[in-house]
Amino acid sequence: MDKIRVGVLGATGLVGQVFTYILSEHPWFELSFLAASKASAGRRYGDVVKTYRPVPLPASVAEEIVVEGKPDDIPKDVEILFSALPSKIAGEMEVQLARKGFIVVSNASPLRLEDDVPLVNPEINLDHLQLLELQKRKRGWKGFIVKNPNCTTAILTLTLKPLLQEFGIRKVVMTSMQGLSGAGFPGVPALQIVDNIIPYIEGEEYKVEHETLKILGELDGDRVKEADIKVTATCTRVPVLDGHTEAVFVEFKRKACIEEVIQAFEEFRSKPQEMKLPSAPQRPIVVRHEKDRPQPRLDRWEGKGMSVVVGRIREDNTLNPGVKYLVTGHNLVRGAAGIAVLIAEAMVKLGYV
Amino acid sequence: MDKIRVGVLGATGLVGQVFTYILSEHPWFELSFLAASKASAGRRYGDVVKTYRPVPLPASVAEEIVVEGKPDDIPKDVEILFSALPSKIAGEMEVQLARKGFIVVSNASPLRLEDDVPLVNPEINLDHLQLLELQKRKRGWKGFIVKNPNCTTAILTLTLKPLLQEFGIRKVVMTSMQGLSGAGFPGVPALQIVDNIIPYIEGEEYKVEHETLKILGELDGDRVKEADIKVTATCTRVPVLDGHTEAVFVEFKRKACIEEVIQAFEEFRSKPQEMKLPSAPQRPIVVRHEKDRPQPRLDRWEGKGMSVVVGRIREDNTLNPGVKYLVTGHNLVRGAAGIAVLIAEAMVKLGYV
Amino acid sequence: MDKIRVGVLGATGLVGQVFTYILSEHPWFELSFLAASKASAGRRYGDVVKTYRPVPLPASVAEEIVVEGKPDDIPKDVEILFSALPSKIAGEMEVQLARKGFIVVSNASPLRLEDDVPLVNPEINLDHLQLLELQKRKRGWKGFIVKNPNCTTAILTLTLKPLLQEFGIRKVVMTSMQGLSGAGFPGVPALQIVDNIIPYIEGEEYKVEHETLKILGELDGDRVKEADIKVTATCTRVPVLDGHTEAVFVEFKRKACIEEVIQAFEEFRSKPQEMKLPSAPQRPIVVRHEKDRPQPRLDRWEGKGMSVVVGRIREDNTLNPGVKYLVTGHNLVRGAAGIAVLIAEAMVKLGYV
Amino acid sequence: MDKIRVGVLGATGLVGQVFTYILSEHPWFELSFLAASKASAGRRYGDVVKTYRPVPLPASVAEEIVVEGKPDDIPKDVEILFSALPSKIAGEMEVQLARKGFIVVSNASPLRLEDDVPLVNPEINLDHLQLLELQKRKRGWKGFIVKNPNCTTAILTLTLKPLLQEFGIRKVVMTSMQGLSGAGFPGVPALQIVDNIIPYIEGEEYKVEHETLKILGELDGDRVKEADIKVTATCTRVPVLDGHTEAVFVEFKRKACIEEVIQAFEEFRSKPQEMKLPSAPQRPIVVRHEKDRPQPRLDRWEGKGMSVVVGRIREDNTLNPGVKYLVTGHNLVRGAAGIAVLIAEAMVKLGYV
Repeated sequence: MDKIRVGVLGATGLVGQVFTYILSEHPWFELSFLAASKASAGRRYGDVVKTYRPVPLPASVAEEIVVEGKPDDIPKDVEILFSALPSKIAGEMEVQLARKGFIVVSNASPLRLEDDVPLVNPEINLDHLQLLELQKRKRGWKGFIVKNPNCTTAILTLTLKPLLQEFGIRKVVMTSMQGLSGAGFPGVPALQIVDNIIPYIEGEEYKVEHETLKILGELDGDRVKEADIKVTATCTRVPVLDGHTEAVFVEFKRKACIEEVIQAFEEFRSKPQEMKLPSAPQRPIVVRHEKDRPQPRLDRWEGKGMSVVVGRIREDNTLNPGVKYLVTGHNLVRGAAGIAVLIAEAMVKLGYV
Repeated sequence: MDKIRVGVLGATGLVGQVFTYILSEHPWFELSFLAASKASAGRRYGDVVKTYRPVPLPASVAEEIVVEGKPDDIPKDVEILFSALPSKIAGEMEVQLARKGFIVVSNASPLRLEDDVPLVNPEINLDHLQLLELQKRKRGWKGFIVKNPNCTTAILTLTLKPLLQEFGIRKVVMTSMQGLSGAGFPGVPALQIVDNIIPYIEGEEYKVEHETLKILGELDGDRVKEADIKVTATCTRVPVLDGHTEAVFVEFKRKACIEEVIQAFEEFRSKPQEMKLPSAPQRPIVVRHEKDRPQPRLDRWEGKGMSVVVGRIREDNTLNPGVKYLVTGHNLVRGAAGIAVLIAEAMVKLGYV
Repeated sequence: MDKIRVGVLGATGLVGQVFTYILSEHPWFELSFLAASKASAGRRYGDVVKTYRPVPLPASVAEEIVVEGKPDDIPKDVEILFSALPSKIAGEMEVQLARKGFIVVSNASPLRLEDDVPLVNPEINLDHLQLLELQKRKRGWKGFIVKNPNCTTAILTLTLKPLLQEFGIRKVVMTSMQGLSGAGFPGVPALQIVDNIIPYIEGEEYKVEHETLKILGELDGDRVKEADIKVTATCTRVPVLDGHTEAVFVEFKRKACIEEVIQAFEEFRSKPQEMKLPSAPQRPIVVRHEKDRPQPRLDRWEGKGMSVVVGRIREDNTLNPGVKYLVTGHNLVRGAAGIAVLIAEAMVKLGYV
Repeated sequence: MDKIRVGVLGATGLVGQVFTYILSEHPWFELSFLAASKASAGRRYGDVVKTYRPVPLPASVAEEIVVEGKPDDIPKDVEILFSALPSKIAGEMEVQLARKGFIVVSNASPLRLEDDVPLVNPEINLDHLQLLELQKRKRGWKGFIVKNPNCTTAILTLTLKPLLQEFGIRKVVMTSMQGLSGAGFPGVPALQIVDNIIPYIEGEEYKVEHETLKILGELDGDRVKEADIKVTATCTRVPVLDGHTEAVFVEFKRKACIEEVIQAFEEFRSKPQEMKLPSAPQRPIVVRHEKDRPQPRLDRWEGKGMSVVVGRIREDNTLNPGVKYLVTGHNLVRGAAGIAVLIAEAMVKLGYV
């Protein structure tokens, strides 16, 4: 088939760079539009991103000229816009673009919890894309907006899904130890984090506690009925470059032994795997059996950054019946650019594009 | 009064060094005996500890000659022995010393959960020292053994005590991010922890889950009746030199608003404060109101390392009624040498010495 | 005597905070004026500096209200102004203040190499203060401006002075490994320096190569005759919070054995020690004899941050006759605020204030 | 051609792991023998190396069983043995193996400076391999021993070669900032290097100062005549996982402008490139023109770890005529396993195997 033309908004930030890295050699998509702020417009992409690179710079993309990305400047033949825009400007800008007819797949937080906006972790809730019909109708847009979850939530929910399916979930208690790249660039000053951790990330816990319920919820007519689960989170920053690690405690509805839990994780496959989407990892959840894994430096690139790695699965005596475990995932891939591309691939396959 | 002569076993390790640092200028105790392994025996203390120092080396101690510390070599006029022995040899050695009549206040893990061995966090359960009579009688020793808790547990329980008193506790879920010095020296290789965290500390979670119940338990005749609380823990290592940080979620028996919880923490005082023990911090629990505290580098030396610092106190929607918060404490002081000295001070004041 | 009233310009930056820390309990100076940018003006000092603190915040200073610090706002009875202003605005602002009659002791780089501006490292060249007469006369100011050197240069020159005195110096080759606080706050992003070093610090090498010659130069009538030495430097940033470490190679004019060099370092004392100035360290240069010192974390606070620590003194086979050694010093104290206060103390004693 | 059977001694250490990584898919060599200490013998390679991995573990190697590697146990059809043995045992063991007829290409330091042992950095002095005839004759061995240089020296000399060729060299002054993996595993304790640097690496400076002269020297009959250069070094350890960075100052015999120096670096090619050896990087020296490069995290894998990256090339005012620059290289690849494999490839091509 002919490649579908796509663009990246906010192309010069960390998430933007991972988008261009993934899209530069994508079998279905042709990256034909790189937009960023006025300060970068008119300059060679390779020059603008040279301060800090979370992934290698593809030679083919380095020579592209960055544009400012006002809605009117975007070529009509671009179909999908991946948004890595900062929250402050994403809200309004993405709406304008959807109104004009673009398909916006967005990593930005605004609108994630709106009733008619699908918030999608593709192995969990591709059926929520059905909200798009409603969204178009209700808002009178020619295009539409799909959201991927907050990075920490994307990693967490991927592990919760098989547990919910197999054992039912009552409660989730999670403490995260998040990598530096989650704060963007320049992000956290070295003076604050060397020999230290920072036990606070603005807005993060609210996102985890609310987005999780929507992603794991069921489509119920015109809206998603939130999952009947209690989720509480404490989010911290640690001196790790990339990769978020989460200590998770889950209370089940039904009793389960550890072997069943391991099996549920290891055998978990879903639509992206069935549809053989290009960005779908073969194993969404990789279980490590060493006593001291997962570790972010060793495990963040598992499945090209699209798998999450689970370890230390133990019975829990307090949330009971239940388990506790740790999970690590790549915040910029499964938690941001990679998941958005996977959503877009599913949308193509399912006929939304 | 005349100073009481004391000695340190395992004086050259990290905890041993903090013992000598605290004891070198102690108003009640005179440090007159430094014991370590055969390899160090006969050498100047200042030469043996020069590889790594967690605290400054007091000039008065540097010149002392280290002895091997066989029970028969210990001068009779030494009354209290502070033990920072490695677990492997602590068990047998401490028993020999107690049998010979020494008072052993020990940071080592063996025997902590024995029925007749008091496991003491002085602001919580000094009354457990009453077990010593039983211990002497039952074991036929001339001296006795008192234990301080595991470092992570010492910090955790100090914050749980006022909550238990005021609101009752059903469940505790805790994830720790522990400093490197908790693993001793040489401890964690830099190659493993730069740009990384290690989500496993051998034996740590068991200690937290079990010691907490004993410390918060009530003396019931000849033994401690464990507190009727469920405790679950996940313990991790982070690239921080000193200081353990813990994300705690607590389910109460009674509803409480945040202001009451803050008040319970801030107003918490106990016997060590009332008795004005030299090592008792004025405020055992310091509450910080900034949105991003406690942080280990900034808060570990609060109250000369004997206070714990609590922050981010929030209502919990999942363990409900309940709260979540973070606490940081100095693992080598409140979590090891400092707490042991505070126990000994209490024992003097209460007539056990 | 009555205390001399002093103020700090740029009081909220890292160097500014060290100024207030040192001055809050100074025996001769009374800190009575804290100036910073418009954004901080009118706010409590303790609130403005809470993001990052390189030293503890003195309680007495926390409550002070920061002012904007326009020349007309400064109370007339303030005699000395310590400047930690950013280079960009220091040049013009300091001139205005000197013109109005204030004594400005400045850590900012502009004017350091001007003929009539003394650039002073107090153990080396207090006699250069004699340029102040010329400065006043030539510029028609009521006050005057004195500069302390760049941090790396201050540490380097302190070790070069006794070598120059005793053996003569032909060449100096220096590579620095500088701490993060030298870049101010927020300074270096953690994403750039974790598992990394950055081999470039803007303008630093030029400062080292030129300021060194002026500081070690001799007063010759109306100007300083630069020392007849060749100096070359490479400056790098490493993941260390505070403290600059320098690998120095020096070619002498006369042959010297290592023992003589050690003696020259250890016996070096100068006017600040003779005059018993409050900030003068007893030993400006401390020599450590261990094979692996100096180390920034262990040695930066030597002499309250005013001493530099030298180690690994070896004969050099290439710059010959000559030696190589390493030196560590605290960039914010000996390299910035501490040295400026020491200059001011000398000025008081010598009658310039 | 049939693949040549090779083995690795000391296969489980960091350098050993890089050997197996490179050799697992080598076009000319078949990895058929993994030897390590008694403790590892008889175990699956994948199990033995799981504590710390500097490179991914090739699936094909993971299943191999490690043997103890006594000379008599080595299959006769193995022709080349790559040695990553610890210095302490390498000396004797390698001699035994050479005596029995094996070709030993060794990263271990013993014998490097022996007259009849070629010390080879393949882009510089492949002609030194001619010493092997002498070695065999003189020692009466059936096989022989070739050495690659110390890691820091390998990186340094690669940049010195084109300068020596084009401009002549009188003096070299070098300060290194070396990565943690250079110390092996477990190596440097995290407690020593977090927020710190260690300005000492045992034996390293001697190696740099002496090996450099031999590598750059000329074959003169039965021995190498050392290059007539003065070299002085200070070696330090920094908190970087992999990659050694060196600040180099070079005094030339002839004047050269910066453009000529850049050209000399960039155009440098040598026999390994001409012979198109599998491990030869296309560009042995990569020059970066950004003002803040090379950086170890960004540049260590250039040319699959076989290139060194040079930056910040500036005229030097002190070593004059001369230049100063920085260079980064991968200590485990160009500095150890990679260079040894490149040597072996050259030996095959040149008929020594």
